[in-house]
Amino acid sequence: MTSSRRNKARGSNAERQLQHMFWNAGYAVIRAAGSGSIPIPCPDLFVMKGDKHFTIEVKFWKAKNLALSKHQFDELIEFAARAYSPVVVAWKIPNKGWHFLRPNDLHKTEKFYTISQKDAMEKGLSFDQLTGNV
Amino acid sequence: MTSSRRNKARGSNAERQLQHMFWNAGYAVIRAAGSGSIPIPCPDLFVMKGDKHFTIEVKFWKAKNLALSKHQFDELIEFAARAYSPVVVAWKIPNKGWHFLRPNDLHKTEKFYTISQKDAMEKGLSFDQLTGNV
Repeated sequence: MTSSRRNKARGSNAERQLQHMFWNAGYAVIRAAGSGSIPIPCPDLFVMKGDKHFTIEVKFWKAKNLALSKHQFDELIEFAARAYSPVVVAWKIPNKGWHFLRPNDLHKTEKFYTISQKDAMEKGLSFDQLTGNV
Repeated sequence: MTSSRRNKARGSNAERQLQHMFWNAGYAVIRAAGSGSIPIPCPDLFVMKGDKHFTIEVKFWKAKNLALSKHQFDELIEFAARAYSPVVVAWKIPNKGWHFLRPNDLHKTEKFYTISQKDAMEKGLSFDQLTGNV
């Protein structure tokens, strides 16, 4: 398996893990087919529990900084605007768990939205905080 | 390509067609990965436009009668209950277009929910009727 395919498989595993976490917390969960490869903007996961729902981009990334392209971010925002549903970036940092980031947590540069591991661990919500189980 | 794989490909094409129809009508649309092969209940498509949303099972089926297993139907209902979002069965009948069916349009038997082509064409909503564009 090439490094790029291995990363993709790990990304899918992270998506499935999160899918189960939300389902077990009582949410309806839908994981997108072919996310990133179709022309229609679409998040990795969409979850909802009654009136509460989130448009979720999932990242399993070990680098010190997370970066989403402005194009990808704008597509998320477009989907979320149609769905009336806030964008959340779910960053799984290897050995440091999940951190749930809101758009304003990220820094905007000319071509990217970025955040450091350090900031993500400070500003990000835990799963329980995001879902209101605290 | 085997007959079963050909049918699966046609089913996916029907899902993608419907995905574009909803997107073009202003909806956020998410098509599920691995629908039917994962343990978590999940529809083929979930679409939403503000407060309006639908849990959609897509069928591209040329037989005179459509049948969904009770198990599959119960899973849709469970997803829909968590999402507060009505179930719609979207039946694309070859050469006769799309017909959007609500659960009560189907007849319940011991193991299946079924409807005939004739009833689907009488009771089903058109896309414009479903989305309120009439």
